[in-house]
Amino acid sequence: MDADKLFDQIIKKKSFLCIGLDPDEDKIPSHLFKHEDPIFEFNKAIIDATHDLVVACKPNLAFYEALGTRGLVSLEKTTNYIKENYPEILQIADAKRGDIGNTAKMYAKSIFEHFQFDAVTLAPYMGKDSITPFLEYEDKWVVILGATSNPGAEDFQLVKTEHGKPFFMEVIEKSSKWADENSLMFVAGATRPQILKEIRQIIPDHFLLVPGVGAQGGNLQDVAENGINSKCGLLINSSRGIIYAGNDEHFAQDARIAAHDLQDQMKEILVNHNLTNA
Amino acid sequence: MDADKLFDQIIKKKSFLCIGLDPDEDKIPSHLFKHEDPIFEFNKAIIDATHDLVVACKPNLAFYEALGTRGLVSLEKTTNYIKENYPEILQIADAKRGDIGNTAKMYAKSIFEHFQFDAVTLAPYMGKDSITPFLEYEDKWVVILGATSNPGAEDFQLVKTEHGKPFFMEVIEKSSKWADENSLMFVAGATRPQILKEIRQIIPDHFLLVPGVGAQGGNLQDVAENGINSKCGLLINSSRGIIYAGNDEHFAQDARIAAHDLQDQMKEILVNHNLTNA
Repeated sequence: MDADKLFDQIIKKKSFLCIGLDPDEDKIPSHLFKHEDPIFEFNKAIIDATHDLVVACKPNLAFYEALGTRGLVSLEKTTNYIKENYPEILQIADAKRGDIGNTAKMYAKSIFEHFQFDAVTLAPYMGKDSITPFLEYEDKWVVILGATSNPGAEDFQLVKTEHGKPFFMEVIEKSSKWADENSLMFVAGATRPQILKEIRQIIPDHFLLVPGVGAQGGNLQDVAENGINSKCGLLINSSRGIIYAGNDEHFAQDARIAAHDLQDQMKEILVNHNLTNA
Repeated sequence: MDADKLFDQIIKKKSFLCIGLDPDEDKIPSHLFKHEDPIFEFNKAIIDATHDLVVACKPNLAFYEALGTRGLVSLEKTTNYIKENYPEILQIADAKRGDIGNTAKMYAKSIFEHFQFDAVTLAPYMGKDSITPFLEYEDKWVVILGATSNPGAEDFQLVKTEHGKPFFMEVIEKSSKWADENSLMFVAGATRPQILKEIRQIIPDHFLLVPGVGAQGGNLQDVAENGINSKCGLLINSSRGIIYAGNDEHFAQDARIAAHDLQDQMKEILVNHNLTNA
């Protein structure tokens, strides 16, 4: 799926919502534990209830790895289920990997071949040779961490370089030359929306994956105001705000209501920016 | 295991060698495939043949994840086997993770609780709240990426900050205040030994985990010259140079010979620096 096809989906679904599939056994509804694989049942119910409202989903691998090998089995079942039933949904592995060349190849094999993800988030610290093995796959996306949404983003990402700009801008400027907007996106957190405007000045065309709306305090209108472009160019992620909207037998309907609320706002934003046909 | 106990092991074994357990099904000896779990058999043979020559081992998780869930089973069996048979060996998960607080907790749970590793490598890009959940575990180590050994290290780690120092120094200076030398180490690559001297000026006491000796071109003597301190303060990693020293039925003995060669050099370095009793 290239950028144009992703934009097609956004127009069709009137949504640029990405749902974060981050299941935690301490938080999912108790009735699911009658099933053999409660994590898969949880994900399946959430995606069945929201698939028409979202263009992407983003399982964070930490939540599966925390359960050991059985968590990885739940993840395999989840990505397979979504690929079979909702092939139009872009599946992003939130992995934040980053390692030397021959090791990066192994991570790419795991994420793109074994788990069949369409995209992966990567940390930039180790530089180009930690990224390029992922870019060698056709029809797959790399999403590089630019400015993240957490408080710790200030520790290093906002440190000024000798040219007076924050370090994350150096990361985006340099790495945006490694691939075009059909295979490269950047993470840009919703919690510092003014930064989105600065990022748009260097990369007008690349998609931005924006976490931090909802539980982390980011605001959808502010993000859109500062980050939208002529092909939308935004994927807004929400995890906890949707998947834990309810925690009883109606959790999937509650998740749909929460997702629908965001999608309604997105629809309005798309209309206001004349983004109604691709 | 705190820094003093690690130094005790170094003195006892006359070695500061860490062995990188990075098994690749395309490279391990073909006769191992008669076993149900060739990866575990490979690791078991390597560690049985070298355990008295090494103080640490470092499985890189990418090599296991590339095989999907069965790779993680091989990893579980490996860490359990080493913990049971060679509990004095520090087991380092080379994971290079880094994510926001609640997600970092999940990675910590996976690596420290599920896999029972003693230490984990972490990427610093997302800042303090991506590191502290790992530091909350007692008797576990965090190893933060400082200056790595790959060519791409130049892309961002060597970019100068507004204070004129390379970015990796900013990372080490700031993050070395988050924990003391009993729970925090730094990765410093062997391929740029002059950098080790600069690092020692800011953190005289912390252990450095040094990859890049051997296949990547780093030199053991240069590393020791620039990085050793009064409690050794070095763990030198070698992966491919040891584990693929041979690839027939004698591979484990060949690995022992390669490890022994490095350990002999380390013994001499320790003697030359009067590090012969703790």
